[in-house]
Amino acid sequence: MALSVAETPDFPYAADEVQCSSDAHWLSVAKQIALSLRETAVARERQGEPPLAEIKLLRESGLLALLNPQAAGGAGASFTDSFRVVRILARADTNVAQLLSYHYLLSHVAYGRALPEQRAELHRRSVAERWFWGGASNPRDAFPVLTREGDGFRLNGRRNFASNAAVADRITVRVLFENEVLLLAVPNPREGVVHGHDWDAFGQKLTESGSIEFRNVRIERDHILGDFPPVPGTAVPPAATLGPPLHQLYFVNFYLGTAEGALSEAKEYVLTSAKPWQTSGVSAASADPYTLEHYGTLDADLRASLALADVAAAEIETAIARGPALTQAERDAAAATVYAAKVHSTRTALDITSRIFDLMGARATAGRYGFDRFWRNIRTHTLHDPLAYKAREVGNFALNGRITPDPLYS
Amino acid sequence: MALSVAETPDFPYAADEVQCSSDAHWLSVAKQIALSLRETAVARERQGEPPLAEIKLLRESGLLALLNPQAAGGAGASFTDSFRVVRILARADTNVAQLLSYHYLLSHVAYGRALPEQRAELHRRSVAERWFWGGASNPRDAFPVLTREGDGFRLNGRRNFASNAAVADRITVRVLFENEVLLLAVPNPREGVVHGHDWDAFGQKLTESGSIEFRNVRIERDHILGDFPPVPGTAVPPAATLGPPLHQLYFVNFYLGTAEGALSEAKEYVLTSAKPWQTSGVSAASADPYTLEHYGTLDADLRASLALADVAAAEIETAIARGPALTQAERDAAAATVYAAKVHSTRTALDITSRIFDLMGARATAGRYGFDRFWRNIRTHTLHDPLAYKAREVGNFALNGRITPDPLYS
Amino acid sequence: MALSVAETPDFPYAADEVQCSSDAHWLSVAKQIALSLRETAVARERQGEPPLAEIKLLRESGLLALLNPQAAGGAGASFTDSFRVVRILARADTNVAQLLSYHYLLSHVAYGRALPEQRAELHRRSVAERWFWGGASNPRDAFPVLTREGDGFRLNGRRNFASNAAVADRITVRVLFENEVLLLAVPNPREGVVHGHDWDAFGQKLTESGSIEFRNVRIERDHILGDFPPVPGTAVPPAATLGPPLHQLYFVNFYLGTAEGALSEAKEYVLTSAKPWQTSGVSAASADPYTLEHYGTLDADLRASLALADVAAAEIETAIARGPALTQAERDAAAATVYAAKVHSTRTALDITSRIFDLMGARATAGRYGFDRFWRNIRTHTLHDPLAYKAREVGNFALNGRITPDPLYS
Amino acid sequence: MALSVAETPDFPYAADEVQCSSDAHWLSVAKQIALSLRETAVARERQGEPPLAEIKLLRESGLLALLNPQAAGGAGASFTDSFRVVRILARADTNVAQLLSYHYLLSHVAYGRALPEQRAELHRRSVAERWFWGGASNPRDAFPVLTREGDGFRLNGRRNFASNAAVADRITVRVLFENEVLLLAVPNPREGVVHGHDWDAFGQKLTESGSIEFRNVRIERDHILGDFPPVPGTAVPPAATLGPPLHQLYFVNFYLGTAEGALSEAKEYVLTSAKPWQTSGVSAASADPYTLEHYGTLDADLRASLALADVAAAEIETAIARGPALTQAERDAAAATVYAAKVHSTRTALDITSRIFDLMGARATAGRYGFDRFWRNIRTHTLHDPLAYKAREVGNFALNGRITPDPLYS
Repeated sequence: MALSVAETPDFPYAADEVQCSSDAHWLSVAKQIALSLRETAVARERQGEPPLAEIKLLRESGLLALLNPQAAGGAGASFTDSFRVVRILARADTNVAQLLSYHYLLSHVAYGRALPEQRAELHRRSVAERWFWGGASNPRDAFPVLTREGDGFRLNGRRNFASNAAVADRITVRVLFENEVLLLAVPNPREGVVHGHDWDAFGQKLTESGSIEFRNVRIERDHILGDFPPVPGTAVPPAATLGPPLHQLYFVNFYLGTAEGALSEAKEYVLTSAKPWQTSGVSAASADPYTLEHYGTLDADLRASLALADVAAAEIETAIARGPALTQAERDAAAATVYAAKVHSTRTALDITSRIFDLMGARATAGRYGFDRFWRNIRTHTLHDPLAYKAREVGNFALNGRITPDPLYS
Repeated sequence: MALSVAETPDFPYAADEVQCSSDAHWLSVAKQIALSLRETAVARERQGEPPLAEIKLLRESGLLALLNPQAAGGAGASFTDSFRVVRILARADTNVAQLLSYHYLLSHVAYGRALPEQRAELHRRSVAERWFWGGASNPRDAFPVLTREGDGFRLNGRRNFASNAAVADRITVRVLFENEVLLLAVPNPREGVVHGHDWDAFGQKLTESGSIEFRNVRIERDHILGDFPPVPGTAVPPAATLGPPLHQLYFVNFYLGTAEGALSEAKEYVLTSAKPWQTSGVSAASADPYTLEHYGTLDADLRASLALADVAAAEIETAIARGPALTQAERDAAAATVYAAKVHSTRTALDITSRIFDLMGARATAGRYGFDRFWRNIRTHTLHDPLAYKAREVGNFALNGRITPDPLYS
Repeated sequence: MALSVAETPDFPYAADEVQCSSDAHWLSVAKQIALSLRETAVARERQGEPPLAEIKLLRESGLLALLNPQAAGGAGASFTDSFRVVRILARADTNVAQLLSYHYLLSHVAYGRALPEQRAELHRRSVAERWFWGGASNPRDAFPVLTREGDGFRLNGRRNFASNAAVADRITVRVLFENEVLLLAVPNPREGVVHGHDWDAFGQKLTESGSIEFRNVRIERDHILGDFPPVPGTAVPPAATLGPPLHQLYFVNFYLGTAEGALSEAKEYVLTSAKPWQTSGVSAASADPYTLEHYGTLDADLRASLALADVAAAEIETAIARGPALTQAERDAAAATVYAAKVHSTRTALDITSRIFDLMGARATAGRYGFDRFWRNIRTHTLHDPLAYKAREVGNFALNGRITPDPLYS
Repeated sequence: MALSVAETPDFPYAADEVQCSSDAHWLSVAKQIALSLRETAVARERQGEPPLAEIKLLRESGLLALLNPQAAGGAGASFTDSFRVVRILARADTNVAQLLSYHYLLSHVAYGRALPEQRAELHRRSVAERWFWGGASNPRDAFPVLTREGDGFRLNGRRNFASNAAVADRITVRVLFENEVLLLAVPNPREGVVHGHDWDAFGQKLTESGSIEFRNVRIERDHILGDFPPVPGTAVPPAATLGPPLHQLYFVNFYLGTAEGALSEAKEYVLTSAKPWQTSGVSAASADPYTLEHYGTLDADLRASLALADVAAAEIETAIARGPALTQAERDAAAATVYAAKVHSTRTALDITSRIFDLMGARATAGRYGFDRFWRNIRTHTLHDPLAYKAREVGNFALNGRITPDPLYS
C-alpha cells in the first residue's frame, strides 16, 4: 500500500476514549499494531504465509495476556477492553483480529471449565509462556474420541475446522469419553496432532482455520479440564451459557472494526486520490454532493452499529458480573442484545465494505490497494452461522421472551 | 382502543433505567402519562380538538418545569432526562411528545438569550405560573417587524408555521428591528396576536403548528430578550450555536419513541389478535418464522438507533458543559453525531411504522386501532428539513471536518 | 385538489401504447376517467360515501363489459387490456381500480364455473344490464350453508369481508351444500342479503369491503353455477387453478398504477410548488441534486416493476390460451412469475408512496393534497395475503420446481 | 470447479426463447460456450493468462461476426440478439462477456464513423479475417496526437485504460489532429504500439484493460475513419449520440447475466451441497423457510431487472431504426430507459452476488468454488461511471425532460 504510517497517524474513528472507560494503554498498544499491520496487509495476504509474524507481534505486545488476572501476571482488563482491542486491530487486518478473538474465547472457555487449581496454573503458564490458544470444537462435526491407555489416554478423531490450532500453543477440544463430553487443553505441537493446512476460503485467508486430525495422541489427566471422572448430569446454570453470546460479540466487534477500516481507507482515498466527476460541477471529489451524502449515510449506519455493540458489551459485562445469581431471563436478555448487534453489524459491515467503492471510483479496484479484502473478509466470516436465525432469536425474545436453545450457537 | 392500561402495564422497551442515570421519578411520571394517552390516542386524533387537555396533563405532572433550575422551583433535570421523557411520551402520542419538545426548546432559547435578571425572572414565573411555551420562528418566512411607538413598540407580520403558539402562554418570536434581529417573548393571548388554526397536515394533527399573525401588537421592553438597544456585530461563540443540534435531538427522540410505540403495539397485536397463515405450519402467529425474523430485524434496527441517540445525548451534554470553552471543532463533532442519529432514526422510524403491518396482517388496518397514525406522524414531522442535507453534513464532517453553516438547520 | 385537468393533460407514465398492443380506445377511456377521478379523489375520500357515482362512471364508460365476448355485446378485450385499464385508473384512485379489478375477477370466476348455457346467459345479461359484480368468498371464514327448501334453496351464513358486494348487481359466493362446495351468483339487492357497511380500514376506504350476512335468502337453481347436483370428486385441471395468479396480477397492476400516480403527483409538485433548500446552491427544486437522484432511483424501480408486470401478463395470457393442455409445471411457472411481480411491486409501491414526500418537502403533507392516500391505500391492500409467503413460493418454484398448494392464495 | 457440464445441462434462467424473437441458433451457440467457460472459470482466473484461448473460442464460434451484415458474410443479427448472447456468456464468465461487448461496441463505432466504402471494406475484412476489436478511448485521459509525416502520419500518446486492445486485431482510438478529433482504426500488433499489460484490478482480471502507448506509430490515410481532412463544425445529429446508451446497455446485460449465473450456482449448491441449519426443523437446505424467502426475493429482483433490460433493448432498437429522423427527445427517452436499467441492474447484481452466500452457508467460501468472482467482477465493472450520476439523469429526464450532455457517458 502506498500510504505510510506517518501520513495517517490515526484512523478517523477515534472515539474510543470518549465513549468508554477502557484502559487507554491497551488501546494505544492496539493502535500501534494496527498501523503496522495496515502497512503490510495487502502484501501479507498475497503471500499467504501462516500468521506466525502476526502472532509474534501480539505475543510481544502483551495483548495475549490482556484478560488474565493481574495476580497471574496478566493485565486484568475487562471483556469490554478486549472488544475494543479487537475492533481496533480489525481496522487494519481482520485476520489478526479474528486470531486474537478466538484466543480470548477459547482460553476463557478453558479457564471456566478448569478446576480452581488447574485454572490458576493455566493462567500462570499462559501469561509466563505467552501462550497463544486455539481450538478444535466446530460443533457440526462428530466428536473426537478419548480412550484410556495405561495411566493416561489416547485421542483419535478429526475436525474440519480448527480455529487458530495450527499456530497455537494449547488447543481446546471437546471429546467424547464413555458417553460424556469432556474438554481438553492439548499442547501443540505434539505427536499425532496433524494440521491439514487446508483452509482456502476467499476471505480471512491468514486465519489458519483448516482441519485437524488427532492420530492416537497421548493425553494426560492434566489435559482434561474439570472433574475426572466427570460428574454426570450436572445442570448447567445460565451463567455457564454465556459463551455463545460472548463469542458472537467478538465477531460483532471485528466486523465493525473492519467496517471502520474500510470507511477510513475510503476517506483517505477520496481526499488524496479520487477525481471529481466531469458533470459534478465541483472541483474536488470530497465536495461531490453524492459522495458527501453517501458517506454520511454509511457513517450514520456505522455509528449506530458501534453504539449498539457498546450497549451489548455493557450488558454482557453485567450478566457475567451477576455470576451464579444470573437468571435465565437475564441471560436471554443479554444474549438478545448481542444477537441484535450481530444482525445489525453484519448488515452494516457487508454494506459498507461493498459500497466504499462507489465513493472512491474505478481506480480504487487496483490490486495494489487490496480494498476488496474488507468485503471478502466480512463476507467469509459472517457466514459462521446463518443471520436469519440470529434475527429469529431476537424476534423470539422480543415476542415470546425466550431464545431457541442451541448449545453452541445461541 | 380496546386494550386497557391494566393489560399493558408497560411498553416492552423499558431499558431506560439500565442504560442511563436519568431521574427515575420523571421517567415514571412520563410512563404514567403515556399509558393514559395511549388509551385515548385514536379518539383524540379523530376529534381533532386543540390539545388543551393534553397540555393540562403535562402542566399538572410537573414535566413543564423539568429543565428549570431547582433554585427557581424547577426539577433541575438534564437534557438527557428530557430526551427520555419525550421518547416515552412518543410511544403513545407523538403529538404530545412534539408539544413538550418544542416547549423545552423554545423556552431554552429564550432563557439563553435573556439577560441574567431577565432569565431569573423567566425561570421563576415559568415554574410558578406553569407556562407552556410556543414559538413563531420558522426561518423560511420573512421576519415580523418591530417598530417603536411611544415608550414601547408595535409588532406586525406573519408566520406560516408557529409551533405550540396557539396554546402557549409565552411565544418566542424572532423580529427585525432597524436591521437587527431581536428575540421576543410575547404573552399569549394578547390583543393583535391572531392564530390561524390552519394546521391541516395528515400527521401530527394535534400539534397546533398553524400560522400566526401579529397585527400591531403592543410590545414592552421586557418582552425583548437580551440587550436593548442591541449590541451590533457581536461574534456568536460556538456554544451559542448548539440550538440546531439540540433541536434535532429532540426530534430524534420522539421519532424513536414513536417507533418503539409502533413495534410495541405490533407485539401486543401479534400475541393477542393475529392468526397464523394457513400454509405456515405453526399454530400461533407469534411462532411464524417470518414474523420472528422480521420482528427481530426491526428490533435490531431500533436498538441500534436508540443506542446512537444515547451516544448523541452524551455528546451534547458534554458540549453544553464545556460552555464558552467549546471550540468550533468540538461543536461540529457533537452536531455531526446528532445528525447521524437524525439520519438513522428517520429511516428506522419510517421503516418500522410502515412494516409493522406485515407482522400484524390485514385486519390491523381497521380504523379503530389507528395504527396508521404512527407512520403519518413520522412521515409528517421527518420532513421538517430534508434528510439528504443532514446526511450531507455527516459526510462533510467526516471527510472535510466541517458542517455547512445554516443558522437554523445545522 | 388544486390542480385542474387542463394543467395536467396526462400522467407522465404514458408508455402504454409503446409497450403493448392494448386496445388504444379503452386505454383512452380509462385515462379520461382517471383524470376526472383525480380531480375529486381527496374530496370523495373525505366524504366517504359508498362508491355509487364511481361505479356509475365505470358503467357508462363501457369498461364493465371490457372482457365479455363481442358475441354477447362486450368489448372482447384481453386480460392484458384489463390490467392496463386497472393500472391507469389506479394512478388517480386506487379504490376504483380495486372495484373494477374485483368486478373482472369475480365475474370471470362465475363465467368459468357456469355451464355453457348459463355462461352465455350471464355474459348476455351482464353486458345488457351493465351488471357490476361483487363477491363474498373470503377464504378465512366458515362457508355459508345452502339447504333445500321446496323447489329451491335457502342460504344462511356470514362473511367478514365481501368485496364490492354492497354495491353489486350479482354477488358470487362459495357455499357448502351437503359436503360439497358450490358457487352461487346471487342477485343483489335481495331479501335477506344484509350488508354490514362496516369496512373501516385506513385505506381503500371507498371499496365497500365490509361484512355480509345471508339471512335465509331464497336461492333458485339458476343461481347455482355449474352442475347440480354437483359431480363429486372431479379432479381440478391446472387450467382451472389460474384464478389465484390472475387475481394477484390485478393487484400488481393497481399497486403499480398507484405508484405511478404518486410519482406523477410528486413530479407535478416539485415542478410547481416545491422550493429549493437554502444550502442547495440551486435555484429550483427540480435542479436539486438529491431530488434528481432520488427521483431517478424511484423511477428506475418503478420501470423495472412495470416491466415485470408486463412479462407476467404475457405469461398468464399464454397459460390461459393453453387451455386444458396446460401442465402443472406450466401453470406453476406462470404463477411464479406473477408472484415475483407481486413481491417486487409491493415493495416498490410501499417505498414510492412513502418516499415521494422526501422529494416534495414538508408542505406537501397539507391535508388538501391528500398525498398520504397513496401509502394508506397501498399499505392496506398489500396485506391481503402475507408477502413473505409469496416470496417463499417464488423461491420454492426456483429451487424445487413447485408451489405450495393453497386453493385461494397461491 | 467440481460440477461437470453433464450435471448442469442448462442455467435455470432459460426464458430467452419465450420473451424475445432472438435467433435461437446464436443463443444456443452462446450457451454451449457458457457451459464450457463455466467448467474452467475458476482455474482460468487463477492462472491469469491473457484471454487468448477465450477469444479463440469466440472467433471459432462465429459470434464475432454476429452483427456484421449478411452481405459481408456476417450473421446480420440484431443488437437485441447480441445483448442476449452477452448475457448468456456472463452467466459463466463476465470477463468473456465484457470482451465480446467491447468488440461489438468498438467495431460498431468504427463502422458508424467510416465513409461508405471504408465501412464496406471494414465489414468484409472483419468477417473474413475474424477480427477481434479493441479500443483506446478512455475519455478521462488526454488525447494521443496525430501529426503528418510525408504521405502518412505519426501517432504519439498514452491511455491508461484500453479495452481489449492488447489482444485485438484492430484498435479504435480517438486522436487529436490540428484541433480536430479523429477516429482511427489501428492494426495490432504494430510497431510502436506498446501494451502495458498492467491491468490489475481485483475483478474482471482477464479483460486486458491495461494501458497502451503509441510511440511514433506510423498511420496511413486508410486508418482514419471518415472524411479527411475533417469537415469542421458539423452538427452531431441525435442518432449519432446513441453510442453511450448502447454502450451502457451491454453493461446492463453482462451485469444481469452475472447475477443469473451467481443465483444459478447458489441454486445448484443449495440442492447438492448445503446442509439444513440445526434449529431449522427441516431436513433439507432447500426447504429452509428463510432460504426459500430470500431466494424468492432475489429472484423477483432479478426478474424485474431482466424485464427492464428487455424493454430498454426494444427502445434502443426502435431509436436506431428511426435513423436521421430520431429527435433529441426520442433519443433522450431511450437513453433514460437504458440508464434506469443501468441503475436497477447495478444494484441488483451487487446485491445478488453478495447475498448468494447467505443461501449457501460458510463452506461455499472455499476457494475451489470461486464464488466470490461474481461480486468481484460486478463490483469492479460497475464503477465504470458513477451510479449516482446515472440516477440523476433518469431523474433529470423524468422531471425536466432532458439529460445532462456528456459525450462519452450519457
